[in-house]
Amino acid sequence: MSDTPRIGETARAHAVNLAELPRIGVGMLGYAFMGKAHSHALLTLPHMVYPPPAVPILAAISGRDAEAVRAAAARFGYEHAYTDWRDLVADPAVQLVDNGGPNNVHAEPCIAAASAGKHVLCEKPLGRTSAEARAMLAAVTRAGVKHMVGFNYRFVPAVRYAYELVQSGALGTIRHFRARYLQDWLADPTSPHSWRLTRSAAGSGSLGDLGAHVIDLARFLVGEPAAVSAVLRTFTAHRPGGTVDVDDAFAATVEFDSGAIGTLEASRVALGRKNHMAFEINGSKGSLAFNLERLNELEVRASEGPGGFTSMLVTDSTHPFMQYWWPTGHIIGWEHTFVHELAHVFDAIVHNRDIAPYGATFEDGYRAAVVCDAIAASARDRSQMRVTY
Amino acid sequence: MSDTPRIGETARAHAVNLAELPRIGVGMLGYAFMGKAHSHALLTLPHMVYPPPAVPILAAISGRDAEAVRAAAARFGYEHAYTDWRDLVADPAVQLVDNGGPNNVHAEPCIAAASAGKHVLCEKPLGRTSAEARAMLAAVTRAGVKHMVGFNYRFVPAVRYAYELVQSGALGTIRHFRARYLQDWLADPTSPHSWRLTRSAAGSGSLGDLGAHVIDLARFLVGEPAAVSAVLRTFTAHRPGGTVDVDDAFAATVEFDSGAIGTLEASRVALGRKNHMAFEINGSKGSLAFNLERLNELEVRASEGPGGFTSMLVTDSTHPFMQYWWPTGHIIGWEHTFVHELAHVFDAIVHNRDIAPYGATFEDGYRAAVVCDAIAASARDRSQMRVTY
Amino acid sequence: MSDTPRIGETARAHAVNLAELPRIGVGMLGYAFMGKAHSHALLTLPHMVYPPPAVPILAAISGRDAEAVRAAAARFGYEHAYTDWRDLVADPAVQLVDNGGPNNVHAEPCIAAASAGKHVLCEKPLGRTSAEARAMLAAVTRAGVKHMVGFNYRFVPAVRYAYELVQSGALGTIRHFRARYLQDWLADPTSPHSWRLTRSAAGSGSLGDLGAHVIDLARFLVGEPAAVSAVLRTFTAHRPGGTVDVDDAFAATVEFDSGAIGTLEASRVALGRKNHMAFEINGSKGSLAFNLERLNELEVRASEGPGGFTSMLVTDSTHPFMQYWWPTGHIIGWEHTFVHELAHVFDAIVHNRDIAPYGATFEDGYRAAVVCDAIAASARDRSQMRVTY
Amino acid sequence: MSDTPRIGETARAHAVNLAELPRIGVGMLGYAFMGKAHSHALLTLPHMVYPPPAVPILAAISGRDAEAVRAAAARFGYEHAYTDWRDLVADPAVQLVDNGGPNNVHAEPCIAAASAGKHVLCEKPLGRTSAEARAMLAAVTRAGVKHMVGFNYRFVPAVRYAYELVQSGALGTIRHFRARYLQDWLADPTSPHSWRLTRSAAGSGSLGDLGAHVIDLARFLVGEPAAVSAVLRTFTAHRPGGTVDVDDAFAATVEFDSGAIGTLEASRVALGRKNHMAFEINGSKGSLAFNLERLNELEVRASEGPGGFTSMLVTDSTHPFMQYWWPTGHIIGWEHTFVHELAHVFDAIVHNRDIAPYGATFEDGYRAAVVCDAIAASARDRSQMRVTY
Repeated sequence: MSDTPRIGETARAHAVNLAELPRIGVGMLGYAFMGKAHSHALLTLPHMVYPPPAVPILAAISGRDAEAVRAAAARFGYEHAYTDWRDLVADPAVQLVDNGGPNNVHAEPCIAAASAGKHVLCEKPLGRTSAEARAMLAAVTRAGVKHMVGFNYRFVPAVRYAYELVQSGALGTIRHFRARYLQDWLADPTSPHSWRLTRSAAGSGSLGDLGAHVIDLARFLVGEPAAVSAVLRTFTAHRPGGTVDVDDAFAATVEFDSGAIGTLEASRVALGRKNHMAFEINGSKGSLAFNLERLNELEVRASEGPGGFTSMLVTDSTHPFMQYWWPTGHIIGWEHTFVHELAHVFDAIVHNRDIAPYGATFEDGYRAAVVCDAIAASARDRSQMRVTY
Repeated sequence: MSDTPRIGETARAHAVNLAELPRIGVGMLGYAFMGKAHSHALLTLPHMVYPPPAVPILAAISGRDAEAVRAAAARFGYEHAYTDWRDLVADPAVQLVDNGGPNNVHAEPCIAAASAGKHVLCEKPLGRTSAEARAMLAAVTRAGVKHMVGFNYRFVPAVRYAYELVQSGALGTIRHFRARYLQDWLADPTSPHSWRLTRSAAGSGSLGDLGAHVIDLARFLVGEPAAVSAVLRTFTAHRPGGTVDVDDAFAATVEFDSGAIGTLEASRVALGRKNHMAFEINGSKGSLAFNLERLNELEVRASEGPGGFTSMLVTDSTHPFMQYWWPTGHIIGWEHTFVHELAHVFDAIVHNRDIAPYGATFEDGYRAAVVCDAIAASARDRSQMRVTY
Repeated sequence: MSDTPRIGETARAHAVNLAELPRIGVGMLGYAFMGKAHSHALLTLPHMVYPPPAVPILAAISGRDAEAVRAAAARFGYEHAYTDWRDLVADPAVQLVDNGGPNNVHAEPCIAAASAGKHVLCEKPLGRTSAEARAMLAAVTRAGVKHMVGFNYRFVPAVRYAYELVQSGALGTIRHFRARYLQDWLADPTSPHSWRLTRSAAGSGSLGDLGAHVIDLARFLVGEPAAVSAVLRTFTAHRPGGTVDVDDAFAATVEFDSGAIGTLEASRVALGRKNHMAFEINGSKGSLAFNLERLNELEVRASEGPGGFTSMLVTDSTHPFMQYWWPTGHIIGWEHTFVHELAHVFDAIVHNRDIAPYGATFEDGYRAAVVCDAIAASARDRSQMRVTY
Repeated sequence: MSDTPRIGETARAHAVNLAELPRIGVGMLGYAFMGKAHSHALLTLPHMVYPPPAVPILAAISGRDAEAVRAAAARFGYEHAYTDWRDLVADPAVQLVDNGGPNNVHAEPCIAAASAGKHVLCEKPLGRTSAEARAMLAAVTRAGVKHMVGFNYRFVPAVRYAYELVQSGALGTIRHFRARYLQDWLADPTSPHSWRLTRSAAGSGSLGDLGAHVIDLARFLVGEPAAVSAVLRTFTAHRPGGTVDVDDAFAATVEFDSGAIGTLEASRVALGRKNHMAFEINGSKGSLAFNLERLNELEVRASEGPGGFTSMLVTDSTHPFMQYWWPTGHIIGWEHTFVHELAHVFDAIVHNRDIAPYGATFEDGYRAAVVCDAIAASARDRSQMRVTY
């Protein structure tokens, strides 16, 4: 492996000839929310994470609606537009399949891509169930390709900084992790049905969609959960357009292998909260707190100092990823987490380096699914569930 | 019963002759933290909750250390100082026994006081266990005296205002309640032992001390819990001066009879949090959030408006209790929750009115203890526990 | 002078016999907002600032409305009620005249009190003009009595802590002071007229009422102003009940003798701001920020640390004044600034110690008035005005 | 003119053929901070402000350092790299000259570009003095080209939303505007010299760099200033590498033609403030507050409601510009203000529409320079200065 710094670590940019850099053909599955966000990031990456580990080639995009996929290809500059993802996987120009489709279109294309020797980046949650995720993990492992799950919040500069603080021992032994991911787009019972509200398409509701993020951050920042106990709730069972058979919200306690304890929550009906993915970590020497709605900030209670939380703006050039951006104090947007994430997977491919620990592998995606399943099982059985991978 | 407004409701003060008002002799058990806070409140009450429902007479104070109790009596102006609470209970000048002693001195004096026909105000938690609390409830019920538990946060103006908002239907159907009470005075493992860390004296640790407050507020604001699942943790088992056999922290999920779900947490080791008793309520029409460290503020997400939380300063003369204090914008302190609380019990005694629903009765104290016990049992059995009173 | 700590400095309380303490007879002029606040503080002082430097005797209260002054005397326990302040000044039981009357009743009673050998505490602004204030200063100086102006925000624990930080050099050389005192009780043009809106009674509007506070804090925390330039504005010239001939708001720049620069502002029409007395100090080594609506908090940017502001809860027993109150994290109210202030003047009287530098003397009151006059003159002449005492 | 919505107004995107859209060749002057930010925006614009009013062609970039300008051209994909801006202006492929160079390279290239019939976008401050700005304004007016000044904060969604609120009358008559732009990169007296600290290159210091932004927002949101009074200060006159002959900070009062009053401040030595461009507007019916460090948020005190400020996340698809980005709650970065700004100038060019009122013209740039000059003159003459254009 290379000794060059990983993406996000501070290094001095040097002049490069982009034409001499490696190129990676990307095949994008999906053109909706995630397709748009990833496409934007691919176009931003080569001139902002500079010099980039590789230059992305927008080789192909696929989606079921022929007109929509052609429009997306035109908009972002993909060379080909397919209505069948199999064509995308088969396209020899595609080296990395980036799966931003609905949850029920995660497993089959990812497995096919890995089998075809393509590297795979899959949006979260990896599978609709842990069984599905396990199959996906097996496929990429067997194929020996790079694999990554789109837990993009690991690539928020403040979150990576939090990770570094924890790893450095600055917080001491972690005792508490409390996290919640609150949105309110389903607060209105007349808001319409969608694939996200159907078990067959989505696997679960707030649990896999929002909960998976906080579960991944729990594992990233604190370590492996040992047991969970939980309650799930669907507040509105029927919406215009269909029946809801997934959860609107859940609440769980968590015990970690390390002895730390905490809570995990998610809701799509928490009126007034728009994208409130907030967590707090308390250790024996310090604490920190984060809120995605203010993603350039980190609240840090250092071991020394006047005793309260210090509001840090994580925008210095010495902070993770921020060397790529602007002078201190100029905040970046949510969309650039994908720039960092994609640069990380490119770096791993080009230098044959591990996705872990900074990025989430399919192993991490599988484990998040196991925890999700344990939460659902705990709610069903009204009993604490051990987490066993 | 009288038709006059209850304490905290807005009414116009009128000139009174204090000498013609009823008088209530108070016997204070304890001179430490709670004894000081209640004594301060008794001295403030008659000229600030004006005109007061009754004029308190500081009849007697009791405590085990003769010198200390004499000093406290001198400081606050109690007429008698006793080293045996039985003398306090027996003092004919005492009509209301105010029990601010350690938890293991709650049951016997309260039961004796009730049996002697005295009204009783007891600090929280009511008993060390639900069994103890049930016995106390039985005694006051049998005696027919007024009884109240010192869940003073019901008497924070912003909390009473939150209660009124919920009762008015302004939040719609409540879906979520998430509360945490975080302190950090035990974060340092070398901080000394005390009665609060011994099961025989305290009953439990963070659970009964801090958790009881959030449990009471859950019941006050949202309704009866139906089931809980929880984890308890003692992070430091040995401290200078003794072994710790109570919890440092707990985390629990809660289901309410109404269908709402949420989390309850408390910790004495959450570094950087000093008195962070914070809760959030999300309903189908609105939300609110509160933090005791900013107890004059309430964050309200109204059903109408631009969609975010509005930071209200609950200091207008039309807000609960604030007619007694200062012009808009001048914040009051934590200590005045006891002024409101004591005024409420005086009002109930003088006008023979119910302590409930604004104040917490021994029934409420008992129910909080049942929930605490259920949380402890759930943690022990690793299973969800139903709450049955 | 005594070597005992000044009020607000940390010291260990010891048992005392209140009966053996000095007693100071207080004569209170006024029964409205300030009369109520000072009376409350006098009743709280002896058992909370403990042991008190002296026990206050509520000797007398005066006011023009006979019924109202009798009611106030009954409410707070004053021994005599007078409708003519001359009787209050003449009362031999009065050693300290506490003047909480309207601004046009500051000079004559204070001068008479000093001439009668009484110590004097006068609410701010000291006089309606600097000439009036100078006459008052001359009187107390000539009489050799203790004199203090009610700039009570010097007695907010967080403000005293800020003072100590500045004095310690922790902030380095001060470069900026920006302060504003914003309220909104006159935002509605139909809110009624009162003495506060009449030049003859009040001297000025937002300038003397709110501006005087920030001017005093500027002098307390940063040092002497050298020059000001300002604009004043009356937005509503006619209100139900009368014509407004004082300012609703002002804005000023300030240069300090030290070279620091800043802004001073006040408004009674800043909709949404209730009692927003907020300041920020930037020094060469650190910064701090304060907001009266959160008076138990101080934002500190220390010379070391992660670069942002740390939110301190100024409630530790080691913080100024907080030894008198509650365990860490339990906030106190605005009303207790008067407890600290009165204890300070009592201490000065009993131990013959200086009011300065912690308390504001009539010299400070005079200087604040000079700065107010300079601001008004600058606005009138559209030119910067030097501040000359 | 076209009836299609202006950039930032909500409209439905429709499928387009990018190849059929107009193309605008951009010549970028400068490759440092602003050159990077504008180049990033040009690359983002066509696929995110979709469909774009025109497709930008990165025709050329110029800069004095041959190697650096070649590297920048390679990085961002400019077709030509020039070391003399005259070549850039002369390049027939360039239709819009985007001037992101140092302040002393604003006037001559912009005037030359206009004379050559090129549209011009110039970074702020427009000129080093109002005389220089006036000459630039004369040139673009004479040439009849589109002209815009890079007051990009007009293109922050929350600021545009604030503008719309004010225009709608929701705040009533504006009474106060208080703004400050605080940074701390010069707090350390040993931080090195640069062109920004030299009058000949920069014109002024914090005044033209930071102050110009708040002056422009004052004019955009409240209206024309009538008079200012100010103080300027250079705290560190000598730095490694040179003498500082510009201001580190200033503070000013402002009177508006409308009668509103306020303060304007800027500093490069406000320790702890990184990019704190914060303003507050108080009107007769409502208020609002903004801070650039949280640029996706706006605090609004509406005419109705519970009386405090509501924290809005300006990220709904109905909010200005946000239709281009992500679902509610996903914040965008500072860098995207340039995307909106460039889209606005493209739209103006293609549809021959006015830059005003949403964008700042050279007239606005000139007027901001007049106010800057008045502030400097007021500080020098110690007198209020009228603002006369």
